[in-house]
Amino acid sequence: MSSDYMIVEDHGTGGLLSKRLLDDVIVPKLKPVYLGKMEDSGIAPVLGNTLAMTTDSFVIDPIFFGNGDIGKLAICGTVNDLAVSGATPKYLTLAFILEEGFLISELSRILDSICKEAQEANVYILAGDTKVVGKGDVDKIYINTAGVGFFAPDQAPLSLSKINKDDHLIITGHVGNHGIHILSFRDGLGFETKVLSDCAPLNKVIQDVLSEFGEGIHYMRDITRGGVGCILNEIAAEIGFSIYLNESSIPMQQETVMAAEMLGIDPLYLANEGNLAIFCSPDISEKLVALLSQYDYTQNASVCGSVQATETTGTFLVTKEGSTRIINSFEGMQLARLC
Amino acid sequence: MSSDYMIVEDHGTGGLLSKRLLDDVIVPKLKPVYLGKMEDSGIAPVLGNTLAMTTDSFVIDPIFFGNGDIGKLAICGTVNDLAVSGATPKYLTLAFILEEGFLISELSRILDSICKEAQEANVYILAGDTKVVGKGDVDKIYINTAGVGFFAPDQAPLSLSKINKDDHLIITGHVGNHGIHILSFRDGLGFETKVLSDCAPLNKVIQDVLSEFGEGIHYMRDITRGGVGCILNEIAAEIGFSIYLNESSIPMQQETVMAAEMLGIDPLYLANEGNLAIFCSPDISEKLVALLSQYDYTQNASVCGSVQATETTGTFLVTKEGSTRIINSFEGMQLARLC
Repeated sequence: MSSDYMIVEDHGTGGLLSKRLLDDVIVPKLKPVYLGKMEDSGIAPVLGNTLAMTTDSFVIDPIFFGNGDIGKLAICGTVNDLAVSGATPKYLTLAFILEEGFLISELSRILDSICKEAQEANVYILAGDTKVVGKGDVDKIYINTAGVGFFAPDQAPLSLSKINKDDHLIITGHVGNHGIHILSFRDGLGFETKVLSDCAPLNKVIQDVLSEFGEGIHYMRDITRGGVGCILNEIAAEIGFSIYLNESSIPMQQETVMAAEMLGIDPLYLANEGNLAIFCSPDISEKLVALLSQYDYTQNASVCGSVQATETTGTFLVTKEGSTRIINSFEGMQLARLC
Repeated sequence: MSSDYMIVEDHGTGGLLSKRLLDDVIVPKLKPVYLGKMEDSGIAPVLGNTLAMTTDSFVIDPIFFGNGDIGKLAICGTVNDLAVSGATPKYLTLAFILEEGFLISELSRILDSICKEAQEANVYILAGDTKVVGKGDVDKIYINTAGVGFFAPDQAPLSLSKINKDDHLIITGHVGNHGIHILSFRDGLGFETKVLSDCAPLNKVIQDVLSEFGEGIHYMRDITRGGVGCILNEIAAEIGFSIYLNESSIPMQQETVMAAEMLGIDPLYLANEGNLAIFCSPDISEKLVALLSQYDYTQNASVCGSVQATETTGTFLVTKEGSTRIINSFEGMQLARLC
């Protein structure tokens, strides 16, 4: 199948093909009306303040997994996308597309999960929509959540342009756990009980970090589709600096490494759903990690990289053995429907 | 199939089953976090102003029809949902779920259409998302658009509570045209060239109407899923008054009546996509119709009903012959995927 004239799975997995579809087709076609950037939330002035807005469709398979479900993902994903911009998530919309024959008991479980996560994240559902399509016209249930957030008077939006040479990079949780959990759950590989999804609402910890460290925090991104590898590549391409990642400092669970090896997948390309890449001033990074380690969802945070000026910009891994290799964005991984 | 434990098509078509799913399952489960009402947009205070927010998924089949496509619907639907609340639509999000194998040329046509409508409606796309699922896991393309709008300083949100006894009801366009166009297009019945979809962005005319008539305008609703019949029933149930509709004054195209007869469907239950039900003070209704008739999209506007205090509230049709019959909400019509 040619990705030039036909949609293929990897147009949706966060790698190079996703980026090409966006850069070559969607953005040019929408140019006169498109205010979004490559960041998680669009930012626009409104009423003398600043609005952050985001959208995400959740098409995960399976819809229920070991320690969560599609409803939990739908709330956390959108809350986190808003929060990493520096905004306080406030109102969400919730849209279901249901397959005829879907069980109302399963919808009820998903609604319970949505309610629980929204309460934890302190967001409200302001509008909803429910569509039903015939058997085979959707796979069980897809959910879209869009959300808006606003900025505290003293909080400017975080942005890529704030990243400086010598900034430190912190990753706040075990890399690849959501992806391994889902892949293992799908195929019954046995790792799904040991490697859990990290899906969680991170807005509370983000707000505390921003209150504590203010201007020292330059940029945040939640590590979702495409994983650490693709996300850092996108960032490096935008900022004109290189990003160096120290393999030995990347927070990673041993069972995740084993499962990824078994599956022949680099965990750096696997989705997380409650994990942040934070770029900050080098002088605060250790104190920031100390703060992050006090929160359940970010207790494994670690300074594991830095921003450097190099002749050719890119993303590099300094391996445990001390050699340096390029981390590419992937073109084709066929890792669809992990979130 | 029992609608008590399993989703059926009519849970999504805007009739009684849709309402029951919302009232009996979704709203109770989300109670602690749900601020929405039965109106098209959720309304919430923010930053000393008021925010309107809405969401809609578009799952229409076919995705291209005689005078429009799913992209046009996705913009107009969300713009209209915001505008009828009295808000000025401002920013939209745009989320695609694409089937593997979908043609990029078709996506491009849809994007062109989105761009054109967004420009006409003067709204901007602030964030987007694209997911891809395998063959058979979605039918070609579904689009979700969520949107936000804000209120002019002198514009309070319209609401059901403003509807009074003796208010007049105006319908602004030919009833049922979108539904007949799509049904005829699907089955090649031949009416699709004579009855066009009325899909259009109505925010410009709504803003002008509100500027001109201010407090005289009490409530507006765009007539989409469920058609005039279901929408008026929902409204009557909320306001505690009855709504009387005069059959001879309902704007209706002759070919739509013919097609509906052939299909055995009452056009009062068919979806429109650019048609308003407006409740206003009786003293301004004729002037309002005069203004509406100057706009392309509302040129067929007509005063065709009124609000009355009766012992038992409901929605009633005064037929051309002078008799009165109840207009019920439908329970099952199987009219899925018209929008």
